[in-house]
Amino acid sequence: MNLKHFEKTLGYHFKAQNLLKEALTHKSAKKGTHNERLEFLGDAVLDLIIGEFLYNKFPNSREGELSKMRASMVNEKAFAKIARYLNIGEYLFISNSEEQNNGRKKDSILSNAFEAVIGAIYLESGLDIARNLMHNLLSAVYPSIDLNSLFYDHKTALQELTQAKFGETPEYVLLDSSGPDHNKNFLIGVKIQGKEFAKASGKSKKEAQQICAKIAIEALKG
Amino acid sequence: MNLKHFEKTLGYHFKAQNLLKEALTHKSAKKGTHNERLEFLGDAVLDLIIGEFLYNKFPNSREGELSKMRASMVNEKAFAKIARYLNIGEYLFISNSEEQNNGRKKDSILSNAFEAVIGAIYLESGLDIARNLMHNLLSAVYPSIDLNSLFYDHKTALQELTQAKFGETPEYVLLDSSGPDHNKNFLIGVKIQGKEFAKASGKSKKEAQQICAKIAIEALKG
Repeated sequence: MNLKHFEKTLGYHFKAQNLLKEALTHKSAKKGTHNERLEFLGDAVLDLIIGEFLYNKFPNSREGELSKMRASMVNEKAFAKIARYLNIGEYLFISNSEEQNNGRKKDSILSNAFEAVIGAIYLESGLDIARNLMHNLLSAVYPSIDLNSLFYDHKTALQELTQAKFGETPEYVLLDSSGPDHNKNFLIGVKIQGKEFAKASGKSKKEAQQICAKIAIEALKG
Repeated sequence: MNLKHFEKTLGYHFKAQNLLKEALTHKSAKKGTHNERLEFLGDAVLDLIIGEFLYNKFPNSREGELSKMRASMVNEKAFAKIARYLNIGEYLFISNSEEQNNGRKKDSILSNAFEAVIGAIYLESGLDIARNLMHNLLSAVYPSIDLNSLFYDHKTALQELTQAKFGETPEYVLLDSSGPDHNKNFLIGVKIQGKEFAKASGKSKKEAQQICAKIAIEALKG
């Protein structure tokens, strides 16, 4: 088990290797120090990094939407996904019984260790470094389409806008789909008050709808 | 209503005055932009600042205790207390009806505005400046005795230690109290297994107990 490989995937080298070991030590390992305190810190660091990311990415979203989006990214399942991308499970220090209990594959253990790793980076190198690293991880783990479709933000924003302006919701229409099954393309139009406001194509209907909504918002605001 | 006075008490001058105004604008003001988004950001900033403060202040506390302590500091009532120290109520932009509804005195409105102000400082000047300012506010609003007695951390830590080591809890004894009522001094001793482990005096029994516990922990660990 070579922690250098882990650091390479992570894109960060720990000056204090004992801090990295602490972050990777599950409480079952009974080594005195384990990763719960770093997890406490990392959890708050991630809440801020992701909150700020969404705050900047969605300048028109209200607090309620931002909170919902953050909840979809800051949770055990989402962090376990990033932890698996980093193969954290392989590098954990855990007890034999937790090992036999499939501990290296548990969402809760993986997610906590990931939070602890971020907490350790924050302690050692500060927020800017932790933020950069987390942005890189988000890009690596969520392809951009996923990231956009995670939110449906333009659609929500457009719906709020048309409700306020016209008292009705936009209608999305599939205009065309083309290409082979593994590489389909969807052309979607959005109608507001019966009038087509925008057309856009994408690799999924959701993606195309999001782009439509974005164009329509700009048209309505402009 | 001069925001310069507010900035003076706060100990921070905003380069972007519109950001300060946004932070002080309650949603009732119907001015388009209000402080909910900044509150979203400030909430996460404060969670991190206070989490980190506790992480460093209590190196022997476990995650569960740290979370409990944070919850006692990161809540509407605690933030409203700081907001009142800053006289935020006076400077709020709120609607007439919210004004008549005593909005300037409501914990929820005050607490949200305080979070938004911290969010705005973070946006404009980053975490280090926001952290310094918050530490100054904590010292100003909580006298040091309050801050220590807010936690009972040494006492909890000592109790855990003696439970693990001897299977019993420590006993605190009032040995003496002296001085006039407005400036009393308490001398407390702590007994473990019937043996006096430490003595300490303080301005309150709780304070003296905390110091006793701290000395006893060091004695037991050393």
